Amino acid sequence: MGAPRKLVLGAFLQTPSQHTAGWRHPRADAEASLDIDAQIAFARTAERGLFHAIFIADTLPFPMVLDPEVLSFSSRVVDFEPMTLLSALSVATKHIGLVATLSTTYFEPYAVARQFASLDHLSKGRAGWNVVTSSNGAEALNHSRDRHPEHSRRYEQAIEFVDIVKGLWDSWDDDAFVFDKASGRFFLPAHLNVLNHVSERYRVRGPLPVARPPQGYPVIVQAGSSDAGRAAAAGFADVVFTAQSDLAGAVDFYTDMKSRAAAVGRNPDHLLILPGVTPVVAPTRAEAEKKYRELQELIHPVAGMAMLSAAAGTDLSGFSPEDRLPPLPETNGDKTRQALLVEHAQKTGKSIRELYRWLASGYNTVVGTPADIADQFEEWLDSRAADGFNVRFSSLPNDLDDFVELVIPELQRRGLFHRAYEGTTLRESLGLPRPQSRYES
Amino acid sequence: MGAPRKLVLGAFLQTPSQHTAGWRHPRADAEASLDIDAQIAFARTAERGLFHAIFIADTLPFPMVLDPEVLSFSSRVVDFEPMTLLSALSVATKHIGLVATLSTTYFEPYAVARQFASLDHLSKGRAGWNVVTSSNGAEALNHSRDRHPEHSRRYEQAIEFVDIVKGLWDSWDDDAFVFDKASGRFFLPAHLNVLNHVSERYRVRGPLPVARPPQGYPVIVQAGSSDAGRAAAAGFADVVFTAQSDLAGAVDFYTDMKSRAAAVGRNPDHLLILPGVTPVVAPTRAEAEKKYRELQELIHPVAGMAMLSAAAGTDLSGFSPEDRLPPLPETNGDKTRQALLVEHAQKTGKSIRELYRWLASGYNTVVGTPADIADQFEEWLDSRAADGFNVRFSSLPNDLDDFVELVIPELQRRGLFHRAYEGTTLRESLGLPRPQSRYES
Repeated sequence: MGAPRKLVLGAFLQTPSQHTAGWRHPRADAEASLDIDAQIAFARTAERGLFHAIFIADTLPFPMVLDPEVLSFSSRVVDFEPMTLLSALSVATKHIGLVATLSTTYFEPYAVARQFASLDHLSKGRAGWNVVTSSNGAEALNHSRDRHPEHSRRYEQAIEFVDIVKGLWDSWDDDAFVFDKASGRFFLPAHLNVLNHVSERYRVRGPLPVARPPQGYPVIVQAGSSDAGRAAAAGFADVVFTAQSDLAGAVDFYTDMKSRAAAVGRNPDHLLILPGVTPVVAPTRAEAEKKYRELQELIHPVAGMAMLSAAAGTDLSGFSPEDRLPPLPETNGDKTRQALLVEHAQKTGKSIRELYRWLASGYNTVVGTPADIADQFEEWLDSRAADGFNVRFSSLPNDLDDFVELVIPELQRRGLFHRAYEGTTLRESLGLPRPQSRYES
Repeated sequence: MGAPRKLVLGAFLQTPSQHTAGWRHPRADAEASLDIDAQIAFARTAERGLFHAIFIADTLPFPMVLDPEVLSFSSRVVDFEPMTLLSALSVATKHIGLVATLSTTYFEPYAVARQFASLDHLSKGRAGWNVVTSSNGAEALNHSRDRHPEHSRRYEQAIEFVDIVKGLWDSWDDDAFVFDKASGRFFLPAHLNVLNHVSERYRVRGPLPVARPPQGYPVIVQAGSSDAGRAAAAGFADVVFTAQSDLAGAVDFYTDMKSRAAAVGRNPDHLLILPGVTPVVAPTRAEAEKKYRELQELIHPVAGMAMLSAAAGTDLSGFSPEDRLPPLPETNGDKTRQALLVEHAQKTGKSIRELYRWLASGYNTVVGTPADIADQFEEWLDSRAADGFNVRFSSLPNDLDDFVELVIPELQRRGLFHRAYEGTTLRESLGLPRPQSRYES
């Protein structure tokens, strides 16, 4: 056997805070969402901590029925648009990967291919695309559509969409451009490839007006955990995010995804599985538990109830925080999230207040010392439940700062985490091969 | 009367070169198009020269019928996507405006509003949007459409589109966000505005997940010079780009646009008219003329013919460089460009080679000393033919460097150009008021 496996860590940066009350913490920067100086500071801290990548979720916070009074207790209502933010961060960082979420349901493949290819060139090979199919029906209301497409159709569309985008990224061979001042020849004509994609859904000719990305293709990330989501990820993803609340479930998911990858002829090592985790860390357990308790008590009941309603896919504001969760109607939104909620409520018998506090904390919160956090990471890595984690921070910058100061050194001491970035691109840092062009023989 | 009027100057940065052969110049950086370090250097030179803004055209270089052999002599085939590039430049510059071109024909108003609002926050108030309706039918082929929309319908759509975008920018009042940690209130509910736009063409609910832009609205630029384009610009634009080849025509255009603005109830001083100009400058006239001649001789006949075909809206490759321009079929593309070409050909009797050399040089090339360039700028400003210029550079970085070294000091010496940026936003630098929200009483 060679060296022990090392963890891949992503920093999931949601501003002003992942936890609904995180922005109210005394050390939190409540105004960070549209402050580029704050965002640059977060990204540089994550880079100092050698996180492989920053992940930016897409803010789609607005429920189908808007109630401004309820919404006004939510901090996740405005932020930078992901592609513009990561482009700005690309020149303020040097090594860290930059992963943005973009929906295949409401954009055109040509536009998506072009912006990600551009970001990959801007960052010299550090771009990643988190492919989502949009679980939020409210998006349809902003895109001149009457209805959100049905769940399984969205995945069919996503698979075709990613295939078109990859085809467009191959528009120019890696060695197409010669810039020959003497002859006047800018590129070699035989190295231009025209996609000519035609289907019922899409007609995209190409070529893309961007050279092949430095990584060949930016890293593809996928987070759906339904059967359709898993099948899609096994086919096209390099990295899978997943919400797992316990080790046994995480092992099942990991095993399933690796075997799905093998079944479609891929090397399972080239599909990285990163469960989400929310560490609440302090030098002692007592301090960590106090920190967690204080955070949970900061949740405003109106915000808590709104969050629970969103996860449930139905309005629960008529219930009291002391009530139990009622039976829920079937959702056309995020089925995985609803199922996780129902399962947890049944298993624990929690009240609505306890449920929104559980939701607010994230599905896999680890409260403890740096050694406690490292113990769980090590256990999941050794149990083949994870190749690493997508780390979420209750509050920014404080929880990110604490993680980099306290947990990263402990992981490095145990030989579980790198001490420098490997290579120059995100693919190299993740140990993933550079994909060949479909036109290469 | 107060101080003399001062010029507004935009730096129109097309990489690797505005002139089709510019990249072949010995001092040119032929590889700049996808090199962020080169782009940052250009932007910083423009900022050192106190240009009010950088303008980025959208690369839509691919003709309806692709001939890779012909295309391979063209340098304008790949570059950064404009929104991602300007986002990157926003953190590498401090004062200069950042104007990107985006089409109202192939994007959704919600996505456009969101990215420009984000860029305005990233740049702390320096974003501008050059609204185009897309003259290139080849775009339809990449967006699952069979046909490019007809010319006048595109402008109707653009007017509605801009109105929706402005409505989305007003989603949050300027003082909406209170970030109140004590009460848990993030924003004031009465200061959220939901657009609810419904028409045959668009249904957009809002709100935008971005706070109101620092400038209220990013600066709106328009460049169409047809009657429909002028009417649209008089209604919604802050800045108009225009292709004018002589003083008399420029005065007519300027007068027409200012009176159109007044006719719709606007202050004509708040609609800035910037004709394009391509200076070829050197310390002496003989040097400048030599520089120009050498550049024109670098045009490869295949590239020249392709450029002329694009402007003509029809394939001219069957003709010889010695031939005269044949009668042209009506175009559904850029009518203004075709009409300018036909008028110039008729007036001058030029051969096809002379015509593509004329096209390559830009419609308003001024060859001479710094004093010659300043003379023309001063004459156009004093004659009310221009409020300033959109300056094009045959070759980068050399022509930008020469302009900043030689022409800017001459303009400043004459009191025609500022010696420092006024204010902090692009609107302040241009002397334009900050627009009120439509919801403000």
